[in-house]
Amino acid sequence: MSSEFTEKVELTGHIIDSLLLPKVLDCVTAAGGAFRIEKITIGQARKDPSYALVEVSAPSEEKLEQILATIADHGAIPVVKQDCRLVAADIAGAFPEGFYSTTNQRTEIRLGGQWVELQDQEMDCGILVDPAASTARCRAMTDVRLGEQFVVGHAGVRVHPHGRETQAHGFEFMNSPVSTEKPKGVAIRQIAQELIRTKREGGKALLVGGPAIVHTGSDEHLCKLLRKGYIQRLFAGNALATHDIEQAIFGTSLGVRLDCGDIVEAGHEHHLRAINRIRRIGSIKKAVEIGELKSGIMYECIRNNVPFLLAGSIRDDGPLPEVITDTLEAQQQMREQIRDVTFCLMVATTLHSIAVGNLLPAWVKVVCVDINPSTCIKLADRGSFQTVGLVTDVEPFFRALVGEVERMEASAR
Amino acid sequence: MSSEFTEKVELTGHIIDSLLLPKVLDCVTAAGGAFRIEKITIGQARKDPSYALVEVSAPSEEKLEQILATIADHGAIPVVKQDCRLVAADIAGAFPEGFYSTTNQRTEIRLGGQWVELQDQEMDCGILVDPAASTARCRAMTDVRLGEQFVVGHAGVRVHPHGRETQAHGFEFMNSPVSTEKPKGVAIRQIAQELIRTKREGGKALLVGGPAIVHTGSDEHLCKLLRKGYIQRLFAGNALATHDIEQAIFGTSLGVRLDCGDIVEAGHEHHLRAINRIRRIGSIKKAVEIGELKSGIMYECIRNNVPFLLAGSIRDDGPLPEVITDTLEAQQQMREQIRDVTFCLMVATTLHSIAVGNLLPAWVKVVCVDINPSTCIKLADRGSFQTVGLVTDVEPFFRALVGEVERMEASAR
Amino acid sequence: MSSEFTEKVELTGHIIDSLLLPKVLDCVTAAGGAFRIEKITIGQARKDPSYALVEVSAPSEEKLEQILATIADHGAIPVVKQDCRLVAADIAGAFPEGFYSTTNQRTEIRLGGQWVELQDQEMDCGILVDPAASTARCRAMTDVRLGEQFVVGHAGVRVHPHGRETQAHGFEFMNSPVSTEKPKGVAIRQIAQELIRTKREGGKALLVGGPAIVHTGSDEHLCKLLRKGYIQRLFAGNALATHDIEQAIFGTSLGVRLDCGDIVEAGHEHHLRAINRIRRIGSIKKAVEIGELKSGIMYECIRNNVPFLLAGSIRDDGPLPEVITDTLEAQQQMREQIRDVTFCLMVATTLHSIAVGNLLPAWVKVVCVDINPSTCIKLADRGSFQTVGLVTDVEPFFRALVGEVERMEASAR
Amino acid sequence: MSSEFTEKVELTGHIIDSLLLPKVLDCVTAAGGAFRIEKITIGQARKDPSYALVEVSAPSEEKLEQILATIADHGAIPVVKQDCRLVAADIAGAFPEGFYSTTNQRTEIRLGGQWVELQDQEMDCGILVDPAASTARCRAMTDVRLGEQFVVGHAGVRVHPHGRETQAHGFEFMNSPVSTEKPKGVAIRQIAQELIRTKREGGKALLVGGPAIVHTGSDEHLCKLLRKGYIQRLFAGNALATHDIEQAIFGTSLGVRLDCGDIVEAGHEHHLRAINRIRRIGSIKKAVEIGELKSGIMYECIRNNVPFLLAGSIRDDGPLPEVITDTLEAQQQMREQIRDVTFCLMVATTLHSIAVGNLLPAWVKVVCVDINPSTCIKLADRGSFQTVGLVTDVEPFFRALVGEVERMEASAR
Repeated sequence: MSSEFTEKVELTGHIIDSLLLPKVLDCVTAAGGAFRIEKITIGQARKDPSYALVEVSAPSEEKLEQILATIADHGAIPVVKQDCRLVAADIAGAFPEGFYSTTNQRTEIRLGGQWVELQDQEMDCGILVDPAASTARCRAMTDVRLGEQFVVGHAGVRVHPHGRETQAHGFEFMNSPVSTEKPKGVAIRQIAQELIRTKREGGKALLVGGPAIVHTGSDEHLCKLLRKGYIQRLFAGNALATHDIEQAIFGTSLGVRLDCGDIVEAGHEHHLRAINRIRRIGSIKKAVEIGELKSGIMYECIRNNVPFLLAGSIRDDGPLPEVITDTLEAQQQMREQIRDVTFCLMVATTLHSIAVGNLLPAWVKVVCVDINPSTCIKLADRGSFQTVGLVTDVEPFFRALVGEVERMEASAR
Repeated sequence: MSSEFTEKVELTGHIIDSLLLPKVLDCVTAAGGAFRIEKITIGQARKDPSYALVEVSAPSEEKLEQILATIADHGAIPVVKQDCRLVAADIAGAFPEGFYSTTNQRTEIRLGGQWVELQDQEMDCGILVDPAASTARCRAMTDVRLGEQFVVGHAGVRVHPHGRETQAHGFEFMNSPVSTEKPKGVAIRQIAQELIRTKREGGKALLVGGPAIVHTGSDEHLCKLLRKGYIQRLFAGNALATHDIEQAIFGTSLGVRLDCGDIVEAGHEHHLRAINRIRRIGSIKKAVEIGELKSGIMYECIRNNVPFLLAGSIRDDGPLPEVITDTLEAQQQMREQIRDVTFCLMVATTLHSIAVGNLLPAWVKVVCVDINPSTCIKLADRGSFQTVGLVTDVEPFFRALVGEVERMEASAR
Repeated sequence: MSSEFTEKVELTGHIIDSLLLPKVLDCVTAAGGAFRIEKITIGQARKDPSYALVEVSAPSEEKLEQILATIADHGAIPVVKQDCRLVAADIAGAFPEGFYSTTNQRTEIRLGGQWVELQDQEMDCGILVDPAASTARCRAMTDVRLGEQFVVGHAGVRVHPHGRETQAHGFEFMNSPVSTEKPKGVAIRQIAQELIRTKREGGKALLVGGPAIVHTGSDEHLCKLLRKGYIQRLFAGNALATHDIEQAIFGTSLGVRLDCGDIVEAGHEHHLRAINRIRRIGSIKKAVEIGELKSGIMYECIRNNVPFLLAGSIRDDGPLPEVITDTLEAQQQMREQIRDVTFCLMVATTLHSIAVGNLLPAWVKVVCVDINPSTCIKLADRGSFQTVGLVTDVEPFFRALVGEVERMEASAR
Repeated sequence: MSSEFTEKVELTGHIIDSLLLPKVLDCVTAAGGAFRIEKITIGQARKDPSYALVEVSAPSEEKLEQILATIADHGAIPVVKQDCRLVAADIAGAFPEGFYSTTNQRTEIRLGGQWVELQDQEMDCGILVDPAASTARCRAMTDVRLGEQFVVGHAGVRVHPHGRETQAHGFEFMNSPVSTEKPKGVAIRQIAQELIRTKREGGKALLVGGPAIVHTGSDEHLCKLLRKGYIQRLFAGNALATHDIEQAIFGTSLGVRLDCGDIVEAGHEHHLRAINRIRRIGSIKKAVEIGELKSGIMYECIRNNVPFLLAGSIRDDGPLPEVITDTLEAQQQMREQIRDVTFCLMVATTLHSIAVGNLLPAWVKVVCVDINPSTCIKLADRGSFQTVGLVTDVEPFFRALVGEVERMEASAR
């Protein structure tokens, strides 16, 4: 088979170490194309960048286009540069056909011969371009307005894939992300360091949490982290807040008394009575102000000015007044609040973890903690590949994490 | 300790077989009370009802009240009858303090000396009473309007717990709901019988499904069930519909080509392009009408007039036009559509299964199918105890189910 | 259907609370028989015993026999007493046909009108009787010798099922044994209390452990418990001992350096070199004596005179010299060493946990700790129902357990 | 830091595609060495071999040796060739210190300037050399005899790592080995093709199975495969054979009646009675001959002359007469019986799967089927990397597999 249509692409960076070159070559041949490596220089040290110039060929122009589009996501950029192509939205709430679909990797587009960095990097968006201002940003499908200019096709777009060596930095402990037989002490120490570094450097650590934090009795540990200023944002659902408030008011979580582990009968109503009481007061915030709510995670958020966001779901009872019941509105607010997040800890929630994972750019470090390996697997399957999974039990995890943080604080004095 | 405060209660039904009597006695003593069984008659045969008259005593009136409230949920009704107590809602969107919180069991209230059956039975609601019309129905917290009359306390409320022997009918195959080492053939045969019986008797079978139905290649089996008229309702989320439409348009699901199992690179964008195309058309329904969507689950629903409900969640891309993004609105519509459901099959979705489980009365048979035991455990932990869990793989499950249905159809001819 | 054949049986104990009566009635009707409750007295308080006299009837003598045999295991004893029936073994290594198969519940047999308690209670054995000495003991199938007298049939055998209230004593925290959303702090505190009580009262605590104890870095915690005298027996396999010794000699476990979590390449050979070195020395014991092995679990066992038993399996490398490679010999030695065990902690091993679970009588408290719910489910499925399952992560579990023990020690001073 | 000590190594094969080069470079720098790629040629097509000549340097000779040893396992061979070094065993049952520990990859050693292929390739063994005959074979530690010559160190040993592209052949369907959301139909079809090809070409397919094959009612499917001649070897334990025979004699498995799914009380004794009966007869084989055993897996093995091997474990009841109770003896017999195995299907057993995985060379295709992802993860963690994991339910898997085989047979006619 003679391959008539060719294009030269180049890759730079840790293309061997981070497996980009093998990946690109694999894509080319898997899609029915062929390649010839024209030049390759490989960095001496582990951190040194490498370079490869590869000629890609395919039996048809269409096939070649498809291959180039695919490998572009892995950082292979055509040598012959061209500007990106723009098409105006012909309808509100949907992109033009052929729109460029973003990854969560750092991306640039070429406008008037200049490379312009994409703002608000987020996967599964379109690229909204303001040609006059020479700026570009990610735009969710629902937010598209008639006449806005969007990038179409892969020409003039370049992606800088996040190398393994960078993302692994500080989190080199996990080979197989779902192994339950690996030592966790090191991982927990590194997370503690990350929280301390984030606070010291003025970064933002986001906790995304599920109700198991309360059910397992981990709330006191999380409260300590909130009081000490190690968590700067909290994303959760109605369930976490409800059981936290149930625990503060009735001393039970899902009808289980956490101090002695007894099942308190009739306790199954407690969560509903807790929601009802807050709804009667008007808001969680007001319940804290009037002294009705005196402890717990939500209390500490309000007392310590940690912004929290409660996103609704169809399984919610109530819900609590602060819960955002419209999912698009919740996504929009999450999007705004993650802009400055530098570290993200996801604990015991699949739904909220995947939702946040969809919004975060690839360079934000994410640790996902769950006793069920399937949550970590699901996150990895969905392309949130910067995620480090820690399959462990929630309460002992938080207990050990607080212990490490306090030990580090003490030794820093 | 002398227990001064006493009350006589009676239990009827399968109180031994269904463990109600042990449960009630256990509650009494666990809560610090005492009991004396005054009379007990036990049914001869397995199906014969039993009767027990029990004197409950407690050291304080408050304690006695609490005990009576708890055992009332298990069907223990005070011998001395009184009407239920009503309080008007003093605020919209919240119940009066002390409201009676419903279970998913058949419930009656006493109004003017008459027992009135509760309509729209649903757990975690209040009981809205129209004294003039002598009617009562479950009301969700958010729907409470100022001035509506709600039952307060447990007096005048009686619950008829669903005995094991009834709920187990036809589904006696599962002892430990999460065992993966039990034979599944019998269970699948019984589900097939249930679907056939439902269709024959004009009942409504509801399928609550997750996107794994499409990822695992089970969509063709489900399509067959839809075409044959065995599924009368479909509840799902944006993900199932999206990957189904992606599959219909691009032949991939999450970038996996289902006919040969190959990973098609660039396929990760397909689901987004599928959503975008439907949004450009306006709706899934219109896409079917204009011939753009020609196969798949959503196509079959529309072609066969099977009502479907797509509930939104914060992890949704797009979403598709038919998706209800407000979670309260979605709950409300689900509530209305389950009124006449007589059988419910939940497959590979934790979120939607729990949401529906919250809405269904205890007497609707529910089978929950998931390869991950934790979903079944979560449903059971949350009190949807009528649920039978089947820990198995989705595609072979559907394949075998369709096989059984077809075999039964053939032998019925 | 007229049931001609009848027999009266009686039940005593916590027959309502521990669900024995419902279970017995269920068995009777499920097997095609019928019952009539002639008399029932139910204990006032939770701990008071109850009594029931039940007439069981069946359509054939054979069916009646089968029903009586079944309900005998749940403690239903015929009112008309008779001695047990003995048959001599006609072959070595096998029981006579119709042999009585033991449960792990306390059992008595009737010999010459006297009830004799069974020694060495163990499930799935035969009952070896010495009529002259009026003694009886459990005998494994392989140990049967020609001419020995064994009980045949159910007549003259009575079982005293372990009531829930007793077994739950101190471990009431677990309802659904596989829930991962329950608080663990209480459970861990109770285990610590059990270890302290066992030591104080001169009982024997047996630890049954898998290699994940070492892989997860829990060995230092276990070493502490061994040094403090809280573990009086250790059962494990070649893998735990190997990785413990690998860790002591090379500082790695399965090639993972536990102090920093790095994967040390070439480390996959370390476990083999560790075994080889011990085999060259002759035994683990000798390696400790000559100072070649200076730390770790095996070291602490030897230094603190804690008997250990290493049972072989077909996946073993090496194995280490002390490993008992014949499985029958290993069973025999385990059987002897568990005679005086009063508390058993099973951690991260399915194979050894089931093996020990098969040998222990029902009244020995067992806690099974594993991050994988399936291990706990498997134990429960196999009839070791005295087992409390704790689904949690091994290292934090041990860390918390040691913390609790030390806290209790301090507060006791 | 100047690195004084250097050595040139070369790699050939699919060093990019199968990630060997990145892996080698990673090892070098991770261990504190440095590298310089002197020459690199990369194959054009996916299947074309590549070549790299790399200069490795390290700060000390010892460090260099260690690095060379590590990368040798990944196929990096020193350019300057030397013979392997031999040391005589100074003790029986243990290797000389510094012994070369084998992988499961194809390996050659250099003897008198000639490369000699290693026989009986198996991981975690030593290399026994007969210098006179110029032959070499793997030898397990326990089998070492005094005076035998073993390879010491890595010099003169070269490993040919199995490239991904080869091992993936026919099994490219799995990216993340534990995903439960992938389509299984393709995988099952490929396994069916493998069984058919194995039979046609006179290969040997080994089934390694656990008792869940019987519990789940899959035995009839397996019997069909045995009768049709698609399974040429069976490895199992006492449990599979016992429950199979229980099923044949009593119609139950672990007390569950498989035809209707009912729990038959008293059935928990059936497995013990089944073992006892076979022990009374003398052997499973004799029970078939005298017509006592008339169906089931063991029956089909004996009737169809499929060799079976039952390996003992400490959790066994009985055991059955054919069970090999000594684990070393069992390993030895397994080792001999796998010599000609070309395809291996492991179903629902962790213990036996790992044991067999330890013995098989890397080029034998292995498919591991289990509903519990942890079994597949454990196999992968232990270096049996040729294993493809299929997380699915056993009975539907076998049902679909037999269906595919029959379909292919029909279409071949």
